[in-house]
Amino acid sequence: MLKSVGYAAYNPQTPLRSFHFERRQPGPTDVRIEILYCGVCHSDLHQVRNEWRGTTFPIVPGHEIVGRVVEVGSLVTCFKLGDLVGVGCMVDSCGVCPDCQDYQEQFCDQTVFTYNSPDKHNGKMTYGGYSNQIVVDQGFVLHVSDKLELAAVAPLLCAGITTYSPLRHWKIGKGHKVGIVGLGGLGHMGVKFAHAFGAEVVLFTTSPGKEADAKRLGASEVVISKHADEMEKHLNSFDFILNTVAAQHDLDQYLSLLKRDGTMCLVGVPSEPHPSPNVGNLIFRRRALAGSLIGGIRETQEMLDFCAEHGIVSDIEVIPMAGINDAYQRMLKSDVKYRFVIDMATLQG
Amino acid sequence: MLKSVGYAAYNPQTPLRSFHFERRQPGPTDVRIEILYCGVCHSDLHQVRNEWRGTTFPIVPGHEIVGRVVEVGSLVTCFKLGDLVGVGCMVDSCGVCPDCQDYQEQFCDQTVFTYNSPDKHNGKMTYGGYSNQIVVDQGFVLHVSDKLELAAVAPLLCAGITTYSPLRHWKIGKGHKVGIVGLGGLGHMGVKFAHAFGAEVVLFTTSPGKEADAKRLGASEVVISKHADEMEKHLNSFDFILNTVAAQHDLDQYLSLLKRDGTMCLVGVPSEPHPSPNVGNLIFRRRALAGSLIGGIRETQEMLDFCAEHGIVSDIEVIPMAGINDAYQRMLKSDVKYRFVIDMATLQG
Repeated sequence: MLKSVGYAAYNPQTPLRSFHFERRQPGPTDVRIEILYCGVCHSDLHQVRNEWRGTTFPIVPGHEIVGRVVEVGSLVTCFKLGDLVGVGCMVDSCGVCPDCQDYQEQFCDQTVFTYNSPDKHNGKMTYGGYSNQIVVDQGFVLHVSDKLELAAVAPLLCAGITTYSPLRHWKIGKGHKVGIVGLGGLGHMGVKFAHAFGAEVVLFTTSPGKEADAKRLGASEVVISKHADEMEKHLNSFDFILNTVAAQHDLDQYLSLLKRDGTMCLVGVPSEPHPSPNVGNLIFRRRALAGSLIGGIRETQEMLDFCAEHGIVSDIEVIPMAGINDAYQRMLKSDVKYRFVIDMATLQG
Repeated sequence: MLKSVGYAAYNPQTPLRSFHFERRQPGPTDVRIEILYCGVCHSDLHQVRNEWRGTTFPIVPGHEIVGRVVEVGSLVTCFKLGDLVGVGCMVDSCGVCPDCQDYQEQFCDQTVFTYNSPDKHNGKMTYGGYSNQIVVDQGFVLHVSDKLELAAVAPLLCAGITTYSPLRHWKIGKGHKVGIVGLGGLGHMGVKFAHAFGAEVVLFTTSPGKEADAKRLGASEVVISKHADEMEKHLNSFDFILNTVAAQHDLDQYLSLLKRDGTMCLVGVPSEPHPSPNVGNLIFRRRALAGSLIGGIRETQEMLDFCAEHGIVSDIEVIPMAGINDAYQRMLKSDVKYRFVIDMATLQG
């Protein structure tokens, strides 16, 4: 076994601190990765605090991982020592179900998530990217370009693909008017991608003062969702709305902005249900309310390649590992532009 | 003006009774229709009782109209005296908006509904099909085949198109597994159409004892939705679910039966909101919850032609005009297989 070190939550209340644990020795199809950076996703915090009620402690969060290949198994064909690579939210799936065969492994019933998920290799729970190294089957490792700022690539592995995938699935492009609800880790990537795909992008936020930033990221207009008159101007005008806000809120104010046959896609699970949407808002313009979950491995690679080609990364704030507890506090106040990324060189053994 | 007679509700409480009123003289593009049969839709009752809070009294309901052309305006090119024709939920729209130009007049902001809708010709409210005659612009009149039982064609004009349109829009056909929720006026047409399109059809109902009937109509299986074990067997297996139940109910029990990328389409507006659907049920299989509203005029004609070709009509119970109040009572108990149709020859002047 490989002695490893990371940061873990030992219970829902106390701060994360150093944790020593073991990872498996790389098997024939495994890649061992020295982790260089790991993004901080809001779902890390949800699970650290056991807000989704499924956490096994100690938990090592982190599923926005970039690093360098330091060991490859004998059957690894896609990666070699020294390659820059990424690992996102998944590290395994069944490989044979219809979802896996359609390259949609995120919907497989047996997907193994990168942390806090039953690990087929040892019967324990998986440990994530707040750590010095990780061992992953090559099928769940992504190639990362050396043309991009590596730390800023990390959030693409979750925030990036979570927004890229639905925009691609609903075929967003030139001629479309797209709304992005919320300007956080996900929302700022949604604005960048929708803009890069050629759509006209409107950013919805409850916070005044984000206008300049949203426009810099690619929005052509910013609407304060609390201002009914501003919302009214956009009634029945959107082809697609990507709603990145997980906090409980009124969905109808956005559904009513969709054109006939428009879709609003949710990518956040609220801890308390949203108020029930008005069925009339769906029926009277044949609108749809949908959801989307990260993206498959093949699409994640496509997204990373698209980002390399178009110079797209996340806007980040790099923190040391020991700063994670402060970062969580700031995240709760939405005080981050727009993603914290841990510099794993700061991890003390 | 044309002296006309029908049955009206004078207020939300008392029974419908005879009502004398005037219709406009046919203009150059109008068709005057002697009404032979009119179907009884649940929305007639909702509006008679002012349950949607928009009723102007007296109200003459009825939007499932079949009859015979008895007069045509000088510019009418599509119809001649003696033609069998139908009129559904709409009698006018703006004609120039994107929805109208896409043959989706039902979504036009200026659609004039067949009854209880501001009438552009006289500033009053429109009067519907519980009457001896109606005058309608030829653009909103449908051709009806003489090969079908005329009384049983009437419900196609609302119950038929309301189920046909979403099944077509979501491209249901061979190889699809389709659920129909509820076996009433809409549901029984949904079963017939989904079966005729080649899909495998499962009927969901809360009422035991509908199995033989549902199978006769085209379902291959009937599931009692209160039986959790029966529901469980169908988890993640449906391509599409057409939910015809307007009464408040749990949507999640059906959403969880959809495959990845499946859609549940609602066609009924509940008077009280459904419990808020679980967003996780949308996200974790990229499912969608949508709505659909009747269909456009062109599609309604396509549906009527399809019915003529395939021998499809509604299962009906013919009643005399004076029987409408009893019929409403029975409708409230779902005691009808599956649509009441008024024989307008029984209307007393």
